[in-house]
Amino acid sequence: MTDRIHNFGAGPGVLPEPVLKQAQQDIWNIGGSGIGILEHSHRGKLFERVIAEAEDEARRLADIPDRYKILFVQGGATQQFAMVPMNLLPAGRTADYLLTGVWAEKAHKEAQKFGATHVAVSGESSKFTRIPPTSEIRYSSNPAYVHLTTNNTIYGTQWKNEPPVPDGVPLVADTSSDMFSRPIDVTGYGLIYAGAQKNLGPSGIVMVIMREDLAAQAPEALPTMLQYRTYVKERSLYNTPPTFAIYCVGLVLKWIRACGGLGAMADRNASKAKILYDFLDQSELFRGTVHPDSRSMMNVCFRCPSEELDAKFVSEATARGLDGLKGHRSAGGMRASLYNACSRASVEALVAFMKEFETANR
Amino acid sequence: MTDRIHNFGAGPGVLPEPVLKQAQQDIWNIGGSGIGILEHSHRGKLFERVIAEAEDEARRLADIPDRYKILFVQGGATQQFAMVPMNLLPAGRTADYLLTGVWAEKAHKEAQKFGATHVAVSGESSKFTRIPPTSEIRYSSNPAYVHLTTNNTIYGTQWKNEPPVPDGVPLVADTSSDMFSRPIDVTGYGLIYAGAQKNLGPSGIVMVIMREDLAAQAPEALPTMLQYRTYVKERSLYNTPPTFAIYCVGLVLKWIRACGGLGAMADRNASKAKILYDFLDQSELFRGTVHPDSRSMMNVCFRCPSEELDAKFVSEATARGLDGLKGHRSAGGMRASLYNACSRASVEALVAFMKEFETANR
Repeated sequence: MTDRIHNFGAGPGVLPEPVLKQAQQDIWNIGGSGIGILEHSHRGKLFERVIAEAEDEARRLADIPDRYKILFVQGGATQQFAMVPMNLLPAGRTADYLLTGVWAEKAHKEAQKFGATHVAVSGESSKFTRIPPTSEIRYSSNPAYVHLTTNNTIYGTQWKNEPPVPDGVPLVADTSSDMFSRPIDVTGYGLIYAGAQKNLGPSGIVMVIMREDLAAQAPEALPTMLQYRTYVKERSLYNTPPTFAIYCVGLVLKWIRACGGLGAMADRNASKAKILYDFLDQSELFRGTVHPDSRSMMNVCFRCPSEELDAKFVSEATARGLDGLKGHRSAGGMRASLYNACSRASVEALVAFMKEFETANR
Repeated sequence: MTDRIHNFGAGPGVLPEPVLKQAQQDIWNIGGSGIGILEHSHRGKLFERVIAEAEDEARRLADIPDRYKILFVQGGATQQFAMVPMNLLPAGRTADYLLTGVWAEKAHKEAQKFGATHVAVSGESSKFTRIPPTSEIRYSSNPAYVHLTTNNTIYGTQWKNEPPVPDGVPLVADTSSDMFSRPIDVTGYGLIYAGAQKNLGPSGIVMVIMREDLAAQAPEALPTMLQYRTYVKERSLYNTPPTFAIYCVGLVLKWIRACGGLGAMADRNASKAKILYDFLDQSELFRGTVHPDSRSMMNVCFRCPSEELDAKFVSEATARGLDGLKGHRSAGGMRASLYNACSRASVEALVAFMKEFETANR
């Protein structure tokens, strides 16, 4: 029994209930300190342990070697769209972008403010309903880095593997919507960033995992808060960080470990997504909008035969406690986000309602 | 009865207990929505109301006219140290800084990256234990803006009034440690910014109040997230904001109104501070470190006759549930932060213990 409904929102998204219950307690008084987590100094022993544990959990979950630093940065992935080129794209070099959707395009557009860029591949001709085959990628001669978006929330596509990049070129990934939803070998990347509000915690914090040597390249004239080196040097404590958000990320990472780690999480996510994709594949009313080889395990996009039926479905689903199913304004249709904390029971409830809706409306 | 102790930390600082209790509930399920506040979409109706209410409360508390915009920005006051000159200091102009402590100096140093600056006055010769008299201020010929820090957390000094500025020159204020602790006439300022974690809420959010026309000046080539116009245009929802921090700020502002508003809060804060300053003025062991005309109502700095006694005092106070009294590492001694949510009972408990300590150690 619960007074909570099924939340398929694209982000901020559903969080694990054990994390919420712990936060409820700790907001009043954490660890018997007599002070709530929101009210602890970021320079105190308690919070130092909180941030160290969040980092350690991440390191342990993905087996992250010491030469990679784990940073906590504000400003969302959108601020990373600027920080990446400001820090990693020197004058006279080119940064290559793989365009697989709106967020990749936004990252690319922002980068153009700070230096030369090259579009190595674009899925625009297929309206971003498919991850382009790696054979279509054409890199520039010596890119400073290659940027990709691992999962495309709006269109519901996902890279299954890292694309090949030229030797020695750092791969930079926006993993905001699939970070720690599956195993990730960070050594295949130069820099990984993820807004927390899908799989890792609440909004207001970005986890950055980067090769330490890359942090040293940036011009010192950049704003202090936009230099990765500031976060490396001060262990994300140059100024007061969003302490509660970091605390929540730590709890979510512990929860992932308690669920069996990234491999178990990937299995769980794949099996949740399969329930919905299998239903879509045989439905006579609903259809998935994405090429099967590019289907996201995180965001499942689908449609009815008409916009009227789409609207009716979303409205009736909402009334039945199935929330957040409306597609992004730029894509239309429906989208079910099945992040780490979305339960199998939620997906089963969704499919049960879809069956019922199909019977009533075909 | 409570299991919470007295928290005199300089920030993140103590929050009002009714706010914490509300947050505890809403983290699980806010407003009967079946979804916790951390998990609601920033594009949904519920959060739209949350952010609108936070803005309305601020507007109402300080009677803020429509030509001033209220923005919610990430990155702390430190990011404002860069955003202010990047947005408001055109090439060929000079920005004037009033140096009254470490934070004012940091703001000035960061501004030097982005253009010409001028120190109009500095309290360094008095080791920042006094706000310099306004007669000592020497402005440059036509400053783009004048920047001041209204309250200096580290040294415990506070401007009692805005200093005079040349006609038509916008006054820019870092009010991170005294925002909404007393009435403020925003029309005397071009831009006001305040990290929330002292008087307004948790860390991870900065409230900016600015004249709308000033937001239009910035070069469009700046990073999108560092242009005030982005926040004005999109009502702080260009990307996913720190939803929980904004929610908490709204609750704290409602609590301030329930306490009687800014005038009542100022009276309450002055009377709390008076208890401690009055004790310091007659004590034979403790002494205040700040010139009486510059005393902060927010951060009360004091010392014993020796560093050994300072350390003993902090240690014994901590053991008695009086937390966060150690002075900033750059100032030494003790500091009691008496922000809005610090209760009169906490100050009375502190003074009672100081009396006891004095008797035992003189």
